[in-house]
Formats: sequence, structure tokens, C-alpha cells
Amino acid sequence: MARPLQHPSVKDLTVDSLLYALSDPVRRGIVVKLMGCDGMSCNKACDDLPPSTVSFHHKILRDAGLIRSEKRGVAVINTVRKADIDKRFPGLLDAVLRHHKPGK
Amino acid sequence: MARPLQHPSVKDLTVDSLLYALSDPVRRGIVVKLMGCDGMSCNKACDDLPPSTVSFHHKILRDAGLIRSEKRGVAVINTVRKADIDKRFPGLLDAVLRHHKPGK
Repeated sequence: MARPLQHPSVKDLTVDSLLYALSDPVRRGIVVKLMGCDGMSCNKACDDLPPSTVSFHHKILRDAGLIRSEKRGVAVINTVRKADIDKRFPGLLDAVLRHHKPGK
Repeated sequence: MARPLQHPSVKDLTVDSLLYALSDPVRRGIVVKLMGCDGMSCNKACDDLPPSTVSFHHKILRDAGLIRSEKRGVAVINTVRKADIDKRFPGLLDAVLRHHKPGK
């Protein structure tokens, strides 16, 4: 049986790992896409890259506490932990994503 | 003769390199220290680490466009390029530094 995916608690979120995760344009793009929907699988959020690369980026986002990955039926669906991040670091996520240009 | 230090122009600043540079607590600490003064040498900004480490962190900050390093007499003095960054990415630097805790 696959081990359940790990998510840091709100108190364990750090500016270091959030900024590192958001310093990559592919990862910012995934977060922006997820913000605009109710949840999305990895390959749907990022269909122009190899699955292993997409999976790697999602792991960094999950470990940083930016996304939550949950099994829904046979799929793993990701959502942005916006409320958690805003609670811990108000304004940070919005300030970063405001400057994200799609496709960059 | 030492080569002059390179600084990216305002139009070449990127969210990627700014966030990466700011994802390290030592580097955020240096930026915060420099914001509170007219300029500071590397070893004064960060006197509890080996000079090579301090120099490395300053290089990442300089390459990202966060600081400007200028010769003043025999010393190299660093200042934060706050106006340049605010012009290119309004609100980003303040939003990040607001959540920096000294000593972390």
C-alpha cells in the first residue's frame, strides 16, 4: 500500500521553503493554475513536461506546504493551501503571484 | 586589477532569482540589515560566518539584483537596490521582508 502523502502543519510552514518553492516559474505556474479551480491532478496542471518532472515539482510544492494532495477515487487531486499560507504569512503568496507571468 | 562587480539592470531582474536569493535566512538578514543603514561592508553585515560564506551570500544577492556593491576607498560597500526592485516588482520585497524573523 502506498504511504500517505505528508503535508507540513501550518505552524511548520517557513518563508525559506515557500520562497524556494515559488522561485521556479513552472511551480508558480502550477500554483496559479490550481488557484483558479477546485483541484487538479498533476498531469492536468502541467501537461507539457515529463511526468517525473511534474511529480518532482509537485513534491516540492507539497513539502513547502503550498499544495495539498488528496486521493479522490483513483486520482490524486491537488489544491492550493491558500488559507493556511495567508494565516501564517499574510500577503506573501498574493505579492509573489501578482508578478508571475504565464509561460515564464 | 580586479574586475568590476556586475549588477543586472532593472529590466533584467527576475522573480525567480529574487525569490531564490531571499529564500535563505542569512541572505534575508543581510538585506534587512542593509535596509537600515547607508551601506555596509560584507564582514560588518554578517560577522558570525566565515568570510568565504559571507562573500558567497553577497554574490547571490548581487547577481539577483538585490544589492549594489561599490568601492568606497579601500572598502566595498553594499546597499539594497530597493527603488529598482520596487519599480520592477512593486510590493514584493516588502511582503517578503515583513515575515523575516531576525536570527532565523
